[in-house]
Amino acid sequence: MVSSRTAVLDRVREMHWEERAVPDPGPLEVRVRVRRVGVCGSDVHYYTHGRIGKFVVEAPLVLGHEVSGVVDAVGAGVTRVAPGDRVALEPGVPCRRCLYCRSGQYNLCPDMHFMATPPVDGALSEYVVWPEDYVFPVPGSVSDDAAALLEPLAVGVWAVRRGEVKPGDTVAVIGAGPIGCTTIQAARAAGATTIVAIDLEDFRLDVARRVGATHTLNAGRVDAVQELRRITAALTGLPLSHAGVDVAFETAGSVPTCRMSLEAPHPGGVTVLVGLPPVPEVSVDLVSAASRETDIRGLFRYANCYPAAIALVASGAVDLDALVTHRYAFADAQAALDFADSGKRSSMKVMIDVG
Amino acid sequence: MVSSRTAVLDRVREMHWEERAVPDPGPLEVRVRVRRVGVCGSDVHYYTHGRIGKFVVEAPLVLGHEVSGVVDAVGAGVTRVAPGDRVALEPGVPCRRCLYCRSGQYNLCPDMHFMATPPVDGALSEYVVWPEDYVFPVPGSVSDDAAALLEPLAVGVWAVRRGEVKPGDTVAVIGAGPIGCTTIQAARAAGATTIVAIDLEDFRLDVARRVGATHTLNAGRVDAVQELRRITAALTGLPLSHAGVDVAFETAGSVPTCRMSLEAPHPGGVTVLVGLPPVPEVSVDLVSAASRETDIRGLFRYANCYPAAIALVASGAVDLDALVTHRYAFADAQAALDFADSGKRSSMKVMIDVG
Amino acid sequence: MVSSRTAVLDRVREMHWEERAVPDPGPLEVRVRVRRVGVCGSDVHYYTHGRIGKFVVEAPLVLGHEVSGVVDAVGAGVTRVAPGDRVALEPGVPCRRCLYCRSGQYNLCPDMHFMATPPVDGALSEYVVWPEDYVFPVPGSVSDDAAALLEPLAVGVWAVRRGEVKPGDTVAVIGAGPIGCTTIQAARAAGATTIVAIDLEDFRLDVARRVGATHTLNAGRVDAVQELRRITAALTGLPLSHAGVDVAFETAGSVPTCRMSLEAPHPGGVTVLVGLPPVPEVSVDLVSAASRETDIRGLFRYANCYPAAIALVASGAVDLDALVTHRYAFADAQAALDFADSGKRSSMKVMIDVG
Amino acid sequence: MVSSRTAVLDRVREMHWEERAVPDPGPLEVRVRVRRVGVCGSDVHYYTHGRIGKFVVEAPLVLGHEVSGVVDAVGAGVTRVAPGDRVALEPGVPCRRCLYCRSGQYNLCPDMHFMATPPVDGALSEYVVWPEDYVFPVPGSVSDDAAALLEPLAVGVWAVRRGEVKPGDTVAVIGAGPIGCTTIQAARAAGATTIVAIDLEDFRLDVARRVGATHTLNAGRVDAVQELRRITAALTGLPLSHAGVDVAFETAGSVPTCRMSLEAPHPGGVTVLVGLPPVPEVSVDLVSAASRETDIRGLFRYANCYPAAIALVASGAVDLDALVTHRYAFADAQAALDFADSGKRSSMKVMIDVG
Repeated sequence: MVSSRTAVLDRVREMHWEERAVPDPGPLEVRVRVRRVGVCGSDVHYYTHGRIGKFVVEAPLVLGHEVSGVVDAVGAGVTRVAPGDRVALEPGVPCRRCLYCRSGQYNLCPDMHFMATPPVDGALSEYVVWPEDYVFPVPGSVSDDAAALLEPLAVGVWAVRRGEVKPGDTVAVIGAGPIGCTTIQAARAAGATTIVAIDLEDFRLDVARRVGATHTLNAGRVDAVQELRRITAALTGLPLSHAGVDVAFETAGSVPTCRMSLEAPHPGGVTVLVGLPPVPEVSVDLVSAASRETDIRGLFRYANCYPAAIALVASGAVDLDALVTHRYAFADAQAALDFADSGKRSSMKVMIDVG
Repeated sequence: MVSSRTAVLDRVREMHWEERAVPDPGPLEVRVRVRRVGVCGSDVHYYTHGRIGKFVVEAPLVLGHEVSGVVDAVGAGVTRVAPGDRVALEPGVPCRRCLYCRSGQYNLCPDMHFMATPPVDGALSEYVVWPEDYVFPVPGSVSDDAAALLEPLAVGVWAVRRGEVKPGDTVAVIGAGPIGCTTIQAARAAGATTIVAIDLEDFRLDVARRVGATHTLNAGRVDAVQELRRITAALTGLPLSHAGVDVAFETAGSVPTCRMSLEAPHPGGVTVLVGLPPVPEVSVDLVSAASRETDIRGLFRYANCYPAAIALVASGAVDLDALVTHRYAFADAQAALDFADSGKRSSMKVMIDVG
Repeated sequence: MVSSRTAVLDRVREMHWEERAVPDPGPLEVRVRVRRVGVCGSDVHYYTHGRIGKFVVEAPLVLGHEVSGVVDAVGAGVTRVAPGDRVALEPGVPCRRCLYCRSGQYNLCPDMHFMATPPVDGALSEYVVWPEDYVFPVPGSVSDDAAALLEPLAVGVWAVRRGEVKPGDTVAVIGAGPIGCTTIQAARAAGATTIVAIDLEDFRLDVARRVGATHTLNAGRVDAVQELRRITAALTGLPLSHAGVDVAFETAGSVPTCRMSLEAPHPGGVTVLVGLPPVPEVSVDLVSAASRETDIRGLFRYANCYPAAIALVASGAVDLDALVTHRYAFADAQAALDFADSGKRSSMKVMIDVG
Repeated sequence: MVSSRTAVLDRVREMHWEERAVPDPGPLEVRVRVRRVGVCGSDVHYYTHGRIGKFVVEAPLVLGHEVSGVVDAVGAGVTRVAPGDRVALEPGVPCRRCLYCRSGQYNLCPDMHFMATPPVDGALSEYVVWPEDYVFPVPGSVSDDAAALLEPLAVGVWAVRRGEVKPGDTVAVIGAGPIGCTTIQAARAAGATTIVAIDLEDFRLDVARRVGATHTLNAGRVDAVQELRRITAALTGLPLSHAGVDVAFETAGSVPTCRMSLEAPHPGGVTVLVGLPPVPEVSVDLVSAASRETDIRGLFRYANCYPAAIALVASGAVDLDALVTHRYAFADAQAALDFADSGKRSSMKVMIDVG
């Protein structure tokens, strides 16, 4: 058992520090000395609102689910990692036994245990114990920051799998925040050759271009759907009625972008809803989408994406370090959350240096 | 050139008869003596409203696109059919040259030529000339009525392909009209073992049960979504949050059924929108559907479904004759359309006996 | 702990009886009073040869992996079954933690624990303890015999999934033994409308026809590939170079049938190798198959097939009772194995009535 | 009608020059002034052997099917290109009407008309008339050489589609000639992060590394399968029994490499047979491949790959110019073929500068 300094959220915008006892790892578990924790929009939302939909912070909660670290101790049955190994933690552990788990869709498991989703504690702590099958060793070419950011990259990889992006595809990524940018990177890795990033902030569009967008559109200044049609019609030679991208990704989570994402694909294309507007209902032109055979596919976290995400970063195909714009010491974790909330328009990823 | 008695729609609810000249078939064309034309909801809609969305009847139009007949003459290059062959006509002929046609998605071809969609004439006529590749010989086990109804069956087959129904699946079919019933039949042929038909009319639910529904729900009397969850939870043993069908088909084309179809599948399931509510926007809980990874897939006509549809009817797996509830002589074509409009609640398919 | 009378194989063709202690089920385990055990070709092979490939019977082994029974006791964490429930056991339990298990391909798990594959004991015993996630309740419409035969049906369902059989497809099933017949049944359930069974024994072909084959060919009397081409060319109207079935299943496990299975599909079709000839190498016309874009897909057991198999039998789409041709009391288990070996040509499935 | 200087193959290793009349383009046709023709292995084989399998040079034949040029004249119905446009020609034109064409598998069309496959003439000529739907405009960023080499890239793109390469995959490409190298490039574009090229010639392996191979193995010096297992086991942490690549591509067309390609994938992996050994039968361990669920997929030309190939080259994701190692003037076309035959070990792609 080790003692682990831990940042605990008590209620909206109130955190305190605790020394928590962390047990020795069980037979198939690993204890990890945490190095980096990336701040995710959901961390910020719990911090500022105390809930996300049906998940409510009713007891003290440890935030943080984008995590890298070093193996500190392993259980007797652990074979894939050893003390000293640098690792990333996949933050959700499913039941491994239900119909969903057995068929590979473990992200939909009804008994998912996911870090920093109440009542499960996250990783803003010196030590975490985690099951071996959700602990992934990373090679030297993957930095500690990048290892933590494999989590949002896993979302991008899953979005691209859901969208079935293929070499030569044209895609639109609506919303150029951290998830938009990992989606751009995953789409580029999957062979998309025209990648149009759309946002309202030039700061974000600049990052998007640096990580792989071939075109950027500020939707505050141009009619983004019109521009998408113009760009794609030139490529296919089809009439404007059949212009549009192969795959549109909505990552901004607002109603107007949700509507835009349904208009963006050509007939037979795909819309992937990654971000979700925080409203009970959305009024959309579902009839037009359906009669154009636009597939609309949502996304809940990801499954089986860490190995691919690691390979993409290790090979240099994806650069996660480029997304880190701000950095805080562990002792300043609360300041990190405050800034991640207030500085959205001029930051991409805020990283906490735990150890 | 033959002379062909033809029923022509002039304007809403006004038809007249003409003797039209029908040319000899070109090198790759077939001339067909029409036997049966089924009345489709779209025929009725043009007849009663003069338009469907952007397609407007601006000149005299021949209705009818569910067609069977006998080959009367063939062009010099025709090899697959010969005079005397009984055939079904696939009513849409694409350009064969665009990106969509080349990749097998010809139903999305921008230059589709589709019977009884303005300005293309349909088949309420004694003779029709049609390209050989969209003329399908049918075996003796397929009646003339059934050959005409291959068209709505093709929609059902396409819906089931879009939904990727697999052996052992549970499906809901919302709306038990002709398209609902061919969808039920196609789903059953694809191995669905639990098929829940939902409608407001007991007459239609009775037909649905006869053609393969294992359960019927009158949504006017029960909470259909609640019932679906109860039925499916008992099969999988998963918690109610994960109850629901594998695939839900919306064939009724109304806003409430559209909303219902998004609630019907379990997480990871599929909604196929076959019918389309005649409204510009629909307010739906897209967020919930997306976060459950429910795929929402529309449908525009069908592609490459006639061979499978013929095989299903010829083998006895699907019984299309069971759908014909009313029959009119060719001379009474207008009465057939009037009845198809007024008698919706007590009829399934109205058939016109052209010759 | 209960005492369980058990049939134990000591060496080739030598079995003895033991009273074995069977422990109480662990927290997530179920103890089952066995009712029926079907005799599989692999049981017979271990019995007559003491090995299958690299798997060698080096210590006493209990045979039997087609198993049904009644729940006798359950562990504290078990929720899906209760004492008295009639159940089928899926005989292979994977590690649940490796890359294969996490992605739904648990049949390829390197740490698979499979009944009656040395050194894991099978189910020719009064009681068996098994993990809840591989114990499936069956409804009253599924007999004890059928519940045991869900195992070979799972192979057929998997073969049909691997072959991607669709409604209206033409298939050939080469070899009409128990696996051939469950493949026929699964193919029919998936919508195949032309199902050609091929064997050398008329007895087997008769059963094949009863369970769904639309054509039977005795390959000792006709040129089966030639006949397949004739049958399929008539359906598609394509030239003979493009005749052939959509999917060919090889279930006989001989070199000539393996070669036949590569010739049977049309260009762009699929060959599924279910049976495997017991030879290190096979000389085949791989070049012709490859240049016709015939996909060749093997099969190792199955994954996620029990729920579908249960649904198919419960709905009446598949009749497994029709496959049981011979029946032995538990006390005569050795005689059952002897007969299953000697009586292959005039039997289909031999069933042992354990309790 | 224009006069077109043309290189004609009379018999093995004998060519003569002709002035041929080239007609004006028909309504949907394009006349192209040819600029570059790449020399393909099949051209060399017809030149040196007079046949490939069942295709025999029985009358004078024009070789060349890797073609770029400039539009010279267009038919009245042509809309997508205009005189002066730089274009690539897809060399195979299908019937557009059969079951294969309608379903998007036009590469398997029984009535394919393919350049330089007897009796269809190829493009070693100043002018060619070709149907608009198989003429593709290329942007300025694609050189004339690269436009001609879209043809072998299309093979690589198709191979990668057949293999379903995904981001993060490990692949082996056996044979590092022109097709091996375009396969490497297409696999890299599709996100493969470990790409092992295997050949007997260091010259070819050097090119392979330049265009994207991450590892190269000279199979004359190392045990390539052993090395593949070592490399991949380190990545997945699975036992050696489950080591191997996700997808193996055989592009060398020999019996030993064909056998190697079946051993290279891990269980559940894929082998794509691109090259084909010129022998009627191959003795392979099909049983082992099948029981590991290795899918074996062949390849016949390609379908719907030109748009993606153009996008990949235009975006810079693929560099085709790097493959051109030797260049001949049109007048020296026969010398080009002679060298392409004799200089295989020290050349990659030989290009003929037609105009």
